[in-house]
Amino acid sequence: MSTSAQRTQFEKLADALDSGEFQQIRFVLNHSLRPAEVARLIEKSPPKERQILWNLINTDLEGEVLQDLGDDVQAEILSRMDATEVLAITESLDTDDMADVIQQLPNTVMKELLRIMDKQNRKRVEQVLSYPEDTAGGLMNTDTVTIRPDISVETALRYIRRHKEIPEMTDSLIVVSRKDSYIGILPLTKLLVSDPNITVREIMVTEIEPISATMPDNEVAVLFEQHDLVSAPVIDDDGRLLGRITIDDVVDVIREDADHSLMSMAGLDEDEDTFAPVMKTTRRRALWLGINLITAFVASAVIGLFEETIDKVVALAVLMPIVASMGGIAGSQTLTLVIRGQALGHVEKSNASWLLSREMIVGAMNGLLWALVVAAVAIVWFQDTTIGIIIALSIVINLIAGAMAGTLLPLGLKAVGIDPALAGSVLLTTITDVVGFFTFLGLATMFYS
Amino acid sequence: MSTSAQRTQFEKLADALDSGEFQQIRFVLNHSLRPAEVARLIEKSPPKERQILWNLINTDLEGEVLQDLGDDVQAEILSRMDATEVLAITESLDTDDMADVIQQLPNTVMKELLRIMDKQNRKRVEQVLSYPEDTAGGLMNTDTVTIRPDISVETALRYIRRHKEIPEMTDSLIVVSRKDSYIGILPLTKLLVSDPNITVREIMVTEIEPISATMPDNEVAVLFEQHDLVSAPVIDDDGRLLGRITIDDVVDVIREDADHSLMSMAGLDEDEDTFAPVMKTTRRRALWLGINLITAFVASAVIGLFEETIDKVVALAVLMPIVASMGGIAGSQTLTLVIRGQALGHVEKSNASWLLSREMIVGAMNGLLWALVVAAVAIVWFQDTTIGIIIALSIVINLIAGAMAGTLLPLGLKAVGIDPALAGSVLLTTITDVVGFFTFLGLATMFYS
Repeated sequence: MSTSAQRTQFEKLADALDSGEFQQIRFVLNHSLRPAEVARLIEKSPPKERQILWNLINTDLEGEVLQDLGDDVQAEILSRMDATEVLAITESLDTDDMADVIQQLPNTVMKELLRIMDKQNRKRVEQVLSYPEDTAGGLMNTDTVTIRPDISVETALRYIRRHKEIPEMTDSLIVVSRKDSYIGILPLTKLLVSDPNITVREIMVTEIEPISATMPDNEVAVLFEQHDLVSAPVIDDDGRLLGRITIDDVVDVIREDADHSLMSMAGLDEDEDTFAPVMKTTRRRALWLGINLITAFVASAVIGLFEETIDKVVALAVLMPIVASMGGIAGSQTLTLVIRGQALGHVEKSNASWLLSREMIVGAMNGLLWALVVAAVAIVWFQDTTIGIIIALSIVINLIAGAMAGTLLPLGLKAVGIDPALAGSVLLTTITDVVGFFTFLGLATMFYS
Repeated sequence: MSTSAQRTQFEKLADALDSGEFQQIRFVLNHSLRPAEVARLIEKSPPKERQILWNLINTDLEGEVLQDLGDDVQAEILSRMDATEVLAITESLDTDDMADVIQQLPNTVMKELLRIMDKQNRKRVEQVLSYPEDTAGGLMNTDTVTIRPDISVETALRYIRRHKEIPEMTDSLIVVSRKDSYIGILPLTKLLVSDPNITVREIMVTEIEPISATMPDNEVAVLFEQHDLVSAPVIDDDGRLLGRITIDDVVDVIREDADHSLMSMAGLDEDEDTFAPVMKTTRRRALWLGINLITAFVASAVIGLFEETIDKVVALAVLMPIVASMGGIAGSQTLTLVIRGQALGHVEKSNASWLLSREMIVGAMNGLLWALVVAAVAIVWFQDTTIGIIIALSIVINLIAGAMAGTLLPLGLKAVGIDPALAGSVLLTTITDVVGFFTFLGLATMFYS
């Protein structure tokens, strides 16, 4: 189904919702759309419509739809259910998806849910839950198809044919020892073209190292991208096979990782629900505004130091935002580049000094270029050469300061374990504001006194 | 290979480069690392080291490494080659990867390359090149394994076994008619568990619609994500099979799409090379600073209107950046949320008005909250109640303006075909600066005259 077809689908649904044609909506939700598409419709509906849509979904689809929703929306829907209801709709999910849903539950409901679950399922879920959500263990599924290395290709084929179906995204069988230790993988494409009489051991692939359950999920994503994997085995510290990770879950990690920098730089959470209700949104945003207010007050305090000078030359008040703003823009460009470079794993200690010099040279050159332009405008505007010299000097200085801060802040923040995307932009603006106002007004105080 | 192992690998390489131990580096590049890992090393090296590394790679690996590099770095390396050299190293690549590389070449070299290519290859490459890079046609490979619907499962298995190997990422065979029209797909997992005597037609999957070659690549990504696909067939307007798209290429689209918003909002290109040389970087950044300078001058001009008032009450100059800054921050949060929502396909006409009201209410509420705080501080600081009232009013107004601009700008820009991530932040700052300064200084002029 193309997205444009889906778009009209959504418009139709919106109309149907408005006119209360629930029969028709129920049919579309449960029969025409896939669970992932229903999840998308729910995510892009305001809160009231969301509730209506959710209630129109058949119980047997609820689990699939639920696991396709963003964390925030999931938590909202789950907050209205008790353990028995949650169990009923999640029982049929993959282990990792079930674990993801369970982690959105309040602690008491989660415990209750695990208590009433059947024993085998609980063991599986608890194993996945025992690893943090953002590690390989938290991403894995337990639906592996395993074989022994010493059987023949023909026997392997016969063994597979005894299955009614093979789990989705199975591109290889996992070869394990009698004690379930990981040995290698046998891609289906290889199995299908091999001589039936040779053994699995002779054709299995052992170059690809299995993934340790404690590996962070962004490193898992790098492995999948670099090796073009569809699925990969996960092992514990003793080399025993625990499960496998499939590319569909890795794609979610990649999307979230990439969203993270964008959203964090604006003080938003990457799971942020676009249609969250007013109160929740207000609370979350208030904090960010408060932090930025401190920055703004620091800048004001710097200006306050030079009240007398401004009183003497009012033109300074007119021009000072230009200095701060140019430094802020140049600094943000560097900051964004470095944060992206860190996320891609490009920027590290060994190449940081090259990057810092490049940025400072670029800052100085662009500073000079635009300083001349601004100086010319200022001189013509206020018929005052001094103010042109002052603003030119302070723009060059502030652009170099912005380049330095934009490079060093993310490196330093990462080194002390603070998320550069979250704290970087606030700190950067503080620095370029303070340096900008202080240099410009300070120089003016010297020149005009 | 874990990324931490790779990191030490990189540190070692950097040391080896410094001490000129090229033998050792040559060995690591050509024997210990995969092409994707070599590409990553090159990407995170400054220009000079890059050239050295590239020269140490064996010719037979150069093609694989090249296609794993970012567009910018690719173009840089290709600029030093002629058509014969490019052909030699790219001949063995997948059709879509070869087409990607060719598109980085200057026009004359590209034509020369196509001229000296063998006929069959040229036909394939030209077919991929005939579709824009950012469509399904530009993403596809021509390495499909096809079968007819009327043969039995047993015959299909025998047919496959005649292949020496099956292309990587083959999770299904594609069922086509005698005239190569697309009919359906047969997942390998299904083939392996089916009764050998029934026909392909009985077990093939026809629910998944094939992808049209002209579909934009971000819609392809949505399809892959929603349907958890590993590969999907691509057809032309007549329903004839052209090739297939595989998840590894879709992952690149997802990563680039997500990077696009982040980088564009800072006026950077998503293909931007972290270690681009000074001159290239300076030129690209200069433009962005110039555009932002216009914004800054507009803000200055607004302040200039009120020079007399500022001359009377210097405290205004000290406090005015707070009003502009708070509006800018609040507006950026809304803008980022809406741009992300657009990229995910959540925000569209039918839910835009709900979003606009929510944002305006949130803006007003947070405006009120922080207006009170700022007013209190201002009154204590300057011992002046009037200034408190003025700043409180203008903060509320500017936060609402920021919320409106943050919602409406990306919607409007998208409607007229301008990239909201690129133009949005500049326009937003212009609006919040102008509204902020004008309201604050305008109100002050009324109150103090």
